[in-house]
Amino acid sequence: MSVPADAPKASGATQPEWVRPKKTVEDPVLKVYNSLTRNKDEFIPTKGRQVDWYNCGPTVYDSSHMGHARNYLTQDIVRRILRDYFGYDVNFVMNITDIDDKIILRARESYLLTQNITSNPALTPQLLSSTQEAFTRFLNLKLIKSLPSPVEAPSSPNATSFDHFETILTRDKSDATWAKSARDKDEKFGLYLTSLSKARDAYRIAEQRLETAEVGGDGVRDLVEGASDVLGPYLGDTLGDTISDPISVSRQLASHWEAKFFEDMGRLHILAPDTITRVSEYVPEIVSFVQRIVDNGFAYEGGGSVWFDVAKFEGAEGNGFRHEYAKLQPGSKGNKKLLDEGEGALTGSQGKKQAADFALWKAKSKPGEPAWPSPWGEGRPGWHIECSVMASEVLGSGMDIHSGGVDLMFPHHDNELAQAEAYHGCRQWVNYFLHTGHLHIEGLKMSKSLKNFITIEEALREYSARQLRLAFMLQTWSAKLDFKKDLIIDTKSKEETFDNFFTNVRARINDAASIGVNTDGKHHYDELEKGLEADLHNAQYDFRAALCDSFNTPAALQVLLDLIAKVNIYLSTRGREYNIAPVVNIAQWITRMLKMFGLGEGGPVSDASAIGWGKEGDEGAAAGDFESKLDPYLRAISSFRDEIRRLAIASSSPSEILALCDRFRDNDLVNLGVQLDDGQGADGGALYKLVDPSILIRAREEKAQAAADKAAKKAANAAATEAKRIANLEKGKASPGEMFRPPNVAEGVYTAWDEQGLPTRDGEGKELSKGAQKKCAKEWKIQEKAHEAYLAWLKERGQ
Amino acid sequence: MSVPADAPKASGATQPEWVRPKKTVEDPVLKVYNSLTRNKDEFIPTKGRQVDWYNCGPTVYDSSHMGHARNYLTQDIVRRILRDYFGYDVNFVMNITDIDDKIILRARESYLLTQNITSNPALTPQLLSSTQEAFTRFLNLKLIKSLPSPVEAPSSPNATSFDHFETILTRDKSDATWAKSARDKDEKFGLYLTSLSKARDAYRIAEQRLETAEVGGDGVRDLVEGASDVLGPYLGDTLGDTISDPISVSRQLASHWEAKFFEDMGRLHILAPDTITRVSEYVPEIVSFVQRIVDNGFAYEGGGSVWFDVAKFEGAEGNGFRHEYAKLQPGSKGNKKLLDEGEGALTGSQGKKQAADFALWKAKSKPGEPAWPSPWGEGRPGWHIECSVMASEVLGSGMDIHSGGVDLMFPHHDNELAQAEAYHGCRQWVNYFLHTGHLHIEGLKMSKSLKNFITIEEALREYSARQLRLAFMLQTWSAKLDFKKDLIIDTKSKEETFDNFFTNVRARINDAASIGVNTDGKHHYDELEKGLEADLHNAQYDFRAALCDSFNTPAALQVLLDLIAKVNIYLSTRGREYNIAPVVNIAQWITRMLKMFGLGEGGPVSDASAIGWGKEGDEGAAAGDFESKLDPYLRAISSFRDEIRRLAIASSSPSEILALCDRFRDNDLVNLGVQLDDGQGADGGALYKLVDPSILIRAREEKAQAAADKAAKKAANAAATEAKRIANLEKGKASPGEMFRPPNVAEGVYTAWDEQGLPTRDGEGKELSKGAQKKCAKEWKIQEKAHEAYLAWLKERGQ
Repeated sequence: MSVPADAPKASGATQPEWVRPKKTVEDPVLKVYNSLTRNKDEFIPTKGRQVDWYNCGPTVYDSSHMGHARNYLTQDIVRRILRDYFGYDVNFVMNITDIDDKIILRARESYLLTQNITSNPALTPQLLSSTQEAFTRFLNLKLIKSLPSPVEAPSSPNATSFDHFETILTRDKSDATWAKSARDKDEKFGLYLTSLSKARDAYRIAEQRLETAEVGGDGVRDLVEGASDVLGPYLGDTLGDTISDPISVSRQLASHWEAKFFEDMGRLHILAPDTITRVSEYVPEIVSFVQRIVDNGFAYEGGGSVWFDVAKFEGAEGNGFRHEYAKLQPGSKGNKKLLDEGEGALTGSQGKKQAADFALWKAKSKPGEPAWPSPWGEGRPGWHIECSVMASEVLGSGMDIHSGGVDLMFPHHDNELAQAEAYHGCRQWVNYFLHTGHLHIEGLKMSKSLKNFITIEEALREYSARQLRLAFMLQTWSAKLDFKKDLIIDTKSKEETFDNFFTNVRARINDAASIGVNTDGKHHYDELEKGLEADLHNAQYDFRAALCDSFNTPAALQVLLDLIAKVNIYLSTRGREYNIAPVVNIAQWITRMLKMFGLGEGGPVSDASAIGWGKEGDEGAAAGDFESKLDPYLRAISSFRDEIRRLAIASSSPSEILALCDRFRDNDLVNLGVQLDDGQGADGGALYKLVDPSILIRAREEKAQAAADKAAKKAANAAATEAKRIANLEKGKASPGEMFRPPNVAEGVYTAWDEQGLPTRDGEGKELSKGAQKKCAKEWKIQEKAHEAYLAWLKERGQ
Repeated sequence: MSVPADAPKASGATQPEWVRPKKTVEDPVLKVYNSLTRNKDEFIPTKGRQVDWYNCGPTVYDSSHMGHARNYLTQDIVRRILRDYFGYDVNFVMNITDIDDKIILRARESYLLTQNITSNPALTPQLLSSTQEAFTRFLNLKLIKSLPSPVEAPSSPNATSFDHFETILTRDKSDATWAKSARDKDEKFGLYLTSLSKARDAYRIAEQRLETAEVGGDGVRDLVEGASDVLGPYLGDTLGDTISDPISVSRQLASHWEAKFFEDMGRLHILAPDTITRVSEYVPEIVSFVQRIVDNGFAYEGGGSVWFDVAKFEGAEGNGFRHEYAKLQPGSKGNKKLLDEGEGALTGSQGKKQAADFALWKAKSKPGEPAWPSPWGEGRPGWHIECSVMASEVLGSGMDIHSGGVDLMFPHHDNELAQAEAYHGCRQWVNYFLHTGHLHIEGLKMSKSLKNFITIEEALREYSARQLRLAFMLQTWSAKLDFKKDLIIDTKSKEETFDNFFTNVRARINDAASIGVNTDGKHHYDELEKGLEADLHNAQYDFRAALCDSFNTPAALQVLLDLIAKVNIYLSTRGREYNIAPVVNIAQWITRMLKMFGLGEGGPVSDASAIGWGKEGDEGAAAGDFESKLDPYLRAISSFRDEIRRLAIASSSPSEILALCDRFRDNDLVNLGVQLDDGQGADGGALYKLVDPSILIRAREEKAQAAADKAAKKAANAAATEAKRIANLEKGKASPGEMFRPPNVAEGVYTAWDEQGLPTRDGEGKELSKGAQKKCAKEWKIQEKAHEAYLAWLKERGQ
């Protein structure tokens, strides 16, 4: 920009010297708690205001739970503070781990269970016996191994594993000490009992059905689903190698849970990442990455796998520095338990030279495992390498922030750092490593066996997204959070304080306007008001200082709450002679800061990820909200029209077009909750009604059922009519000439006939009476017609 | 915050040394064009992130106009950038000047005019004569003074000032040169003529009413309002001293226009100031402030007024510095015209010692003027002192930013600085003085006499708040802005570019979701996508650099537009295989930045000053709202289907069905703001886009117009072809037998014919040559065919 054209020139006279302002208050400096130093380090992003950030995303094989909520909500809060408070241009990358031993196992079991249901139309003794086998295997492999003392199987020769299970159950119920020690030995003991009980019940029902020959219907599904906990691992182990396309079987399961994950995140108002990377889409890049680490001398092939050579890496000379291993958690180096957990359930150690080494590439060990080609044979990526590769692909050879749950510190993140530094030949791949703290429930680690396991969906049934976020913000992000009753009470009380404050200020604004307190010729800006303005400015400073102190959200929230308390004191001191202006300033600032944290609810929430700048005259809801709700309707219109055009272009028959119109009404529109009543509209067209889709769908199903019933009845009637007709026709089978002869009449009823076959004498050789003869002749005539009809029917049937 | 409790301890082993990150890209530094240096100075607020800002508010006595819009919109944009982009805690103070000579005059006139109406229930000769007196006075004081050469009053002894006015009017209409020189001499000449004409007309009507004794009804109001321009000053001068409470008379007028001003500001989406100060509420503070300047030796009392002693102040020793006068515009020191304008119409110079001195306190000169007590007798504050006092009251002894229109630089702001520095004994009361540039309309200064005066209300009838803001942002804030046709075209075109971009991205998001382009196992994050992400990051840097360059909004907007062009190139290069993620990132960022500038329209606009964080389940609009908004779409679906069914039942042709599909797209859907692009959807069907219906309707009309033009041209061509055909046919009107006879040939060309009508002798009776006979026979044959065609045509036409 040049000097503005119309700024009056100094016209000869020069301006006096300007004094450069001196700061009397220094800006607080943002410091971040960094796992690489266990210290709060000054935050210095390398590329100006751009912040490159990689976050360890979820392994998608099950519902997201409160632990995930803590992790991703916390990162979202920090991300929003950096972006919307400190004004950084945050570039947030997150991976989806969709290749993983847990996914492979779960997907395979789920696939085989489904196959088991679909390939068995009815219950069979074979199905029962394989279920029993699965039961026995689970009993032996899981439950019996975790007993605190052996429980003898019943001695009867006919006793089954079910009977053995019963004796264990009885012991568990009758001996509390024993029961406790069982659970102490294996925290999953209770879960084993549940799985086995469910399997046994399902087996019993199926057994009974087989006995009563009720083998169809839902019999197979009830058995397989009821016994799935024991059948799954059994089928996986015995039939895993029969899966022809294990990659897509895995991907299908992962894709399902990935969608669920983002649905949960959306409901928690967590901003979507700027870039999402999926492991399954990065396998070729992973192979090249591993190859370069091998080339750099820090990894070796062994048994078809590739292993990272920890000893070679540690202390190796870089360009003016030495490589370091386990920067985050040096004390855990060589911790076998942690290392083994990091390797996954399906991974062996064939070819590994040292215990501390870990897999970069895992050789395919069994048929039925998903595998990709590589220079070392078929296999799949190791867990740790995935993140090194995808982060490098998107962010290049370094980043400002890496984040993840605190439980990933070792070996995952330490191995990830080693791999990336070995690949890039750099000293410090990540400048700030942020680990979000654990979540406990009422003081205990959350786990399914403790029955304190809460999915996000369950949590959101009890608390709003705001309450969860607010609760988490009452603890610093890197510390352990105990989600307990006290915290919930505290959260709700603070939420109420904010709510009451806003309600109060809004009421006062209307009130002030109505009584004109501030336009009576006095300025109402005295010491109290100056004090309140000063309180606001001090709060703004303290708030900033809190967020600069490694995003200290509890302290920042407390600043807001303290300021509210000051406003309340001001208002009660002033009575009716208050000045609304500083109160409004404070309320607006608090509103902005709460929304900045992502604590807004309702319409404007989505604003943080909105697209578009609205239209003049739009009210309330962002245009985008309405548009996204409108989308399925427009999609339906558009596709319907597409189909009509296709039919018209193909010159299809009117009846095809009418059928399409019916399908559109009964399927597409019903699914949208739109009911069309043809001919009921005022203009003679259809009348539309907005109805709960589930009601419409049920009605549609009932209608279909009724139609099916009616059709069945009609078919039955038709069949009966036909049977009757055939029976009638069959009466004409005999020709009239044969009708009075055996076998059409019993032997010996008549003894003589005329040429037409009419009887002339009875069994005793006596001539028939006139009356009898007349009767026979009448019958003969009737039969003559019936026989003609019979012959015509035969001919019609082609006989 | 203490070190998080559950972060795993280093457990003996120590972490390796962490390398403090080095910046590879430096943050651009915010510089601000400062009128105190005529330079872009680095922006250093003294109190950390708090920015104390005082803005010269309006003098409220009339409608706000485009000049105000330029000024306050510009300040709003800069304020939002500082607050919502750079993250400063801006403390924005603005005054309302409600004590001012213009307000006093206008209020007094308005009060007396109203009183004149209410105290006269009917027209009286007295009322007419006082109106005539007012007319004469205005004529003499205003119009006659501005004549380029005298115009003699009519010599008739009965001639009135009305007659004199007529002769001037006649001269003005008949002598263009004279008329021009009159307007050159006084730009208000035309306005005087209008005022006097209106008064004369009102007088004439009243005179007639008086003659016909229709003296009641609206007679008085019509006269007083019609003649208000001449009556107002007359009443003010003659009856001003009869006003018993001139303070509240003034305040009432000011209060009315203050409310209108904030209404206009609200409609322009200008944020309300954090603190508003009114002069009328600060008189006691002003008195004390003036007293201290007197005490400090920089002002003296004279004639009941207090004058600032410029000579004493300039160069006076402060604490380690010398005071300077006219820091902003030193070249204007002693400019009498500017100084007089600054003093106001009601202010004399009694008691002033030097021409350069100016009033801090103005003695009450006449009865009927609002006045407040002071140690120097009754009086009122000078204009410049108001701002010095109120800014000091709210912001203390210094501030970061002072802003105002560029026309206020001297003497207002220079005097304000001198007063405040004389009061506080400080060297530099304001660190950054920001002056918003002028506004011109089509190259000319806006003025009532040029008839290019546009109020904000008028402007908002023609343009949206967004368009005005966007137009202003296309010029740097401190430069002159020419509000001309080109700028409006450019503004609308840029608005459309943004609109189209958002529409397109939203359509693509839905489309991408429907075909799952990004979940097919490939990562779709190749060089083009990396390039696009890099474009975003570069744009973010350039955007920041532009705003750091003294809030260079045209450059910042260009960065956004260039980025949109890059997205468009990306999408057209990729075709159907695009990655939606970087496109979404860019669209979200652009959305946030436009909203940051205050360019959002509709619901979320008010978000910038919202109070409260919403409620769970709020969707902005209630479900009922959604349904009512959904209604027209469902109606359209339903009718379309009705029509299709009707056509199918009637076994109509496919082309009729296709025509219906086109009409549905071009009429029904267009009216709903839905654009269907056939064949552009990912599935090969139509792609729907949500667009402003008015744009679609305009496009449809243009298309219809083009089609109509084409049809008209075709019809014209067809008509021409037909005319040609008829002309040809008409050539065959004569039968071949008649063709060589008169009147088909001239009388006397031939004299004899054979039975076929072929000529045998020429006009002189000579036999025709063989060649001539042959030629005629040939023509005869041609005519025979033409005549047949002619007869057939006649028959065809039914003749």
